Amino acid sequence: MAIHHFVPTAWHNVLGTLPPVLRCADGDTLVTETLDAVGYDRNGIFRQPPPNPMVGPIYIEGAEPGNALRVEIVRMTPTRDTGWTRVGLAPNVMDPEAILGLSPDARAVWAIDRAAGTVQLQDPVPGLERLVLPIEPMIGCFGVAPDLGQAFSTATSAKNGGNMDYRAFGPGTTVWFPVAVPGALFYLGDCHALQGDGEIVGTGIETTFEVELRFSIERQRPMVWPRGETATDIFSVGNARPLDQALQHATTDMLNWLVADYGLSVTAASHLMGQVVRYDVGNVYDPAYTMVCRIAKKWLPPRRRA
Amino acid sequence: MAIHHFVPTAWHNVLGTLPPVLRCADGDTLVTETLDAVGYDRNGIFRQPPPNPMVGPIYIEGAEPGNALRVEIVRMTPTRDTGWTRVGLAPNVMDPEAILGLSPDARAVWAIDRAAGTVQLQDPVPGLERLVLPIEPMIGCFGVAPDLGQAFSTATSAKNGGNMDYRAFGPGTTVWFPVAVPGALFYLGDCHALQGDGEIVGTGIETTFEVELRFSIERQRPMVWPRGETATDIFSVGNARPLDQALQHATTDMLNWLVADYGLSVTAASHLMGQVVRYDVGNVYDPAYTMVCRIAKKWLPPRRRA
Amino acid sequence: MAIHHFVPTAWHNVLGTLPPVLRCADGDTLVTETLDAVGYDRNGIFRQPPPNPMVGPIYIEGAEPGNALRVEIVRMTPTRDTGWTRVGLAPNVMDPEAILGLSPDARAVWAIDRAAGTVQLQDPVPGLERLVLPIEPMIGCFGVAPDLGQAFSTATSAKNGGNMDYRAFGPGTTVWFPVAVPGALFYLGDCHALQGDGEIVGTGIETTFEVELRFSIERQRPMVWPRGETATDIFSVGNARPLDQALQHATTDMLNWLVADYGLSVTAASHLMGQVVRYDVGNVYDPAYTMVCRIAKKWLPPRRRA
Amino acid sequence: MAIHHFVPTAWHNVLGTLPPVLRCADGDTLVTETLDAVGYDRNGIFRQPPPNPMVGPIYIEGAEPGNALRVEIVRMTPTRDTGWTRVGLAPNVMDPEAILGLSPDARAVWAIDRAAGTVQLQDPVPGLERLVLPIEPMIGCFGVAPDLGQAFSTATSAKNGGNMDYRAFGPGTTVWFPVAVPGALFYLGDCHALQGDGEIVGTGIETTFEVELRFSIERQRPMVWPRGETATDIFSVGNARPLDQALQHATTDMLNWLVADYGLSVTAASHLMGQVVRYDVGNVYDPAYTMVCRIAKKWLPPRRRA
Repeated sequence: MAIHHFVPTAWHNVLGTLPPVLRCADGDTLVTETLDAVGYDRNGIFRQPPPNPMVGPIYIEGAEPGNALRVEIVRMTPTRDTGWTRVGLAPNVMDPEAILGLSPDARAVWAIDRAAGTVQLQDPVPGLERLVLPIEPMIGCFGVAPDLGQAFSTATSAKNGGNMDYRAFGPGTTVWFPVAVPGALFYLGDCHALQGDGEIVGTGIETTFEVELRFSIERQRPMVWPRGETATDIFSVGNARPLDQALQHATTDMLNWLVADYGLSVTAASHLMGQVVRYDVGNVYDPAYTMVCRIAKKWLPPRRRA
Repeated sequence: MAIHHFVPTAWHNVLGTLPPVLRCADGDTLVTETLDAVGYDRNGIFRQPPPNPMVGPIYIEGAEPGNALRVEIVRMTPTRDTGWTRVGLAPNVMDPEAILGLSPDARAVWAIDRAAGTVQLQDPVPGLERLVLPIEPMIGCFGVAPDLGQAFSTATSAKNGGNMDYRAFGPGTTVWFPVAVPGALFYLGDCHALQGDGEIVGTGIETTFEVELRFSIERQRPMVWPRGETATDIFSVGNARPLDQALQHATTDMLNWLVADYGLSVTAASHLMGQVVRYDVGNVYDPAYTMVCRIAKKWLPPRRRA
Repeated sequence: MAIHHFVPTAWHNVLGTLPPVLRCADGDTLVTETLDAVGYDRNGIFRQPPPNPMVGPIYIEGAEPGNALRVEIVRMTPTRDTGWTRVGLAPNVMDPEAILGLSPDARAVWAIDRAAGTVQLQDPVPGLERLVLPIEPMIGCFGVAPDLGQAFSTATSAKNGGNMDYRAFGPGTTVWFPVAVPGALFYLGDCHALQGDGEIVGTGIETTFEVELRFSIERQRPMVWPRGETATDIFSVGNARPLDQALQHATTDMLNWLVADYGLSVTAASHLMGQVVRYDVGNVYDPAYTMVCRIAKKWLPPRRRA
Repeated sequence: MAIHHFVPTAWHNVLGTLPPVLRCADGDTLVTETLDAVGYDRNGIFRQPPPNPMVGPIYIEGAEPGNALRVEIVRMTPTRDTGWTRVGLAPNVMDPEAILGLSPDARAVWAIDRAAGTVQLQDPVPGLERLVLPIEPMIGCFGVAPDLGQAFSTATSAKNGGNMDYRAFGPGTTVWFPVAVPGALFYLGDCHALQGDGEIVGTGIETTFEVELRFSIERQRPMVWPRGETATDIFSVGNARPLDQALQHATTDMLNWLVADYGLSVTAASHLMGQVVRYDVGNVYDPAYTMVCRIAKKWLPPRRRA
């Protein structure tokens, strides 16, 4: 149960089968730092080109294909006094005819008050002079190596995780990824101080973090898509386009989860899901969109499988 | 500011330009009863075939094309001790290959405890024996006549509203519809005691209600899509397939709303939406899906237009 | 088997249950004239606002819900020396980021040489000075009244037909529509001198035509979607968004057709479709897109049902 | 201008940056053999697991990122007397509710008459006893390594090509791929004796081929998506889901092509595309669908760039 303080010196723009930069045992804790989405570090030094430079891969000793890699997000501490966003709504979240007059991308800088835990625009625009928002740290992009020797850009997401940009991937949340290669090969980066649903300007408030994670291996949890658990909810993640298909993946996964781990019949799981399910939108900006199917734990029967 | 107690004796399966069954003035209140989604009344008597029989149309005196019809949902009181749901997850919310083994539709009955404000399965299935859910009444289908003399089935939705199945269309919420014909021609029906996001079994808990609504006309609020406001949020509704396009409509409408009514520039509105927007899924079952773009009022600048 | 020479004096912008303007018997022929898509007649006189003014409805004596209305397109004769197109590619057929710089709509006029059967730009743009294209007349929008008392704008399409903009809807083609109301209530308009796949500038070459059609009723042909037959092929039409779903409708309909009328098992129909099917794109511009599933008649077994 | 007769002994299931198995110069010809989609060779010996084992990568000397790799498909000679297909229509090409009763996958064997150039079912099913189809050889999956160190499964497709399953990728067609890594790293496999549009049973008639290709490098042809040319047409290929987006990519690419290489203004290109464009469906089975935008060369102005 070691704690690894890892200072990366190289980063990757894909999640794939690459030489590990660190080896962790089942149960170990990792404390590391992330670059922002375009490769600047806590000191504003450029370290790696975009998209979304990743720390990793971290080899988890003993993780084998078919296992689940459990990742607890223990802590996320912002390490810079500024973050940035793209200014304009992304073309793909707008009606096609509505964007004919929209101007091109630009960036805005947000001041991060780390003591207060808030952000505000460094140069407020009219109407937003008084907008002060609480930070809600989250990991934009993380996951494991996919199967077959595939390697996916950190601009997108798939069954192995990747650039999902879901708000609930923050401190206190536990996430499971399906292990597809020996050692799982975990990657991490692209953290946000705050982000609305959909990442509809193409960014959250992009900045650098110190992140603390704890890894463990679950050998009896066959999985297809990433899953997670917060203090109050469990959730399944689907990554695809269109959003309809991401929703189909997440819904199918939740059904399978309720049947496999909570002992429900398909009928019982349908009854429950039909009346209590919640959908959350991760990003609708990347090549693959992210849709989350979520259920409050208070409605669940006891788990049969620990 | 009259109160109309209206007992319907005929219902419609379309929202279109049909002879009004009642005329209300600007500011009037309507108290009426709805059938369930397949046309049964509070006494279990069959009154009108599906889909979703509607009360209406209600002619709102003075409403003209280009106006907005404001509808406050004052109260929804369930009037029956049972509701029903479809048993199985809808094929279109599942991975195509996952449904090859799914069995066909059936129905389940839920007991409604009106005193306690709860529902539970009348014949619980294993694992759900202790599931007791609080009711959250909502209007599944309501809206106004569309333009051009069109008439749309109550199985679907469009700019004029219709079968949106959004959970927040309940007591305390105010909704605006774009008036397309003289008198607006308002319709109402298909209320649910409870429903998860997406209406993914094809129903909420379908039952009958007494509904109290207050109508008013806003002449300076040009609109394209339905909008709403709760105690805490404002929201824009997009109805289309795929879900991506419904999201585009809702997002575009929210941008236009912030610019028109809150005095924000496109840039300021983008900044705000990018970091605070929430998306809610209405139904993903009907021919048109429903996506809602929502913002907490605490983040909004003061409205410039009352 | 009468021939009706019908000169319309009123037009509609919806396909719905409206008072018939003409009654035809089973086997009758109709000769009539159509306005262009924005309501101008052969003499350039404005007669009816857009979208796509329709001649009709034509009541077909004896047609009952559940029947199929068979429409032979006998002849289409252009009646004007000009047609027009929109200039720019529609935003929805382009990558979202690619249209940020595109300029707004404008129109171009095409000269129609009726003797030669060709069209060319009246004011050629550089590079297209020598472009002379053969005309290929087609009906952009036609169909019957939908069920339930619904009425759909002529800007879109559904199971009842409507604005499908498929190139093969020209002289020599036979089309079947599912009858949903007594008399079928047939509508017709929006003819094009030429059009590429997808109607991707939002128009074909829009002009006026004299159209000759022959109607007949088939009482033993239950149908869901429009179908057609040319000299060489049979085809099923799906209308929906996204294009994937239109394709699903058309493919499912073709499977059902092969099973019902050609006596193939599902397995045999799958074998055949898998290796010989062709897909054609109708429009990808309207609210509902159109996809056609087509099979060459030379690969079909004999029809079992005449 | 060497001719390389290459007998592969290893295959890959991804298109990525892997060690080259062969180096060819600009202008060289390759003659090689492909396995079928599940890894069997001409003798029915199993050589490599699915999906779609690839010959390659072939390193093209001098090809640099930003170049186009030109691939002429000179010849495709079937090398086996049988091919196979999946029996059932794929769930994703059918209406969701239509597949609830469909049975699971199975395979059918087709006899290939190499002398006659025809195929027929080895065990004909009723109604297809006399079905004899001409073979139309095509390459189902080919392309180059993607950028960023990415590696994509041969089950899907992207900007670098891959599993596109487009009927026109046969003898006589020239294809261009965007070079993303030094040497281009070309891959090839998954050839079909015949295939309908959409590959809607999940396969064409899968068999083995001897394939002859000629490579050349075009240094002044910046590209984003694969392009091709037949005796009569030029075409742009888009790979994505949903089909709407694949169509957007292909249409945008064709516009850019007409502007860059044929000297047309955006307006002129829109005029031309609007009236003459054709869309062809590649596969609608894989994770990414393929849509082709095609124009007959007879309508094009002279190319300005050789």
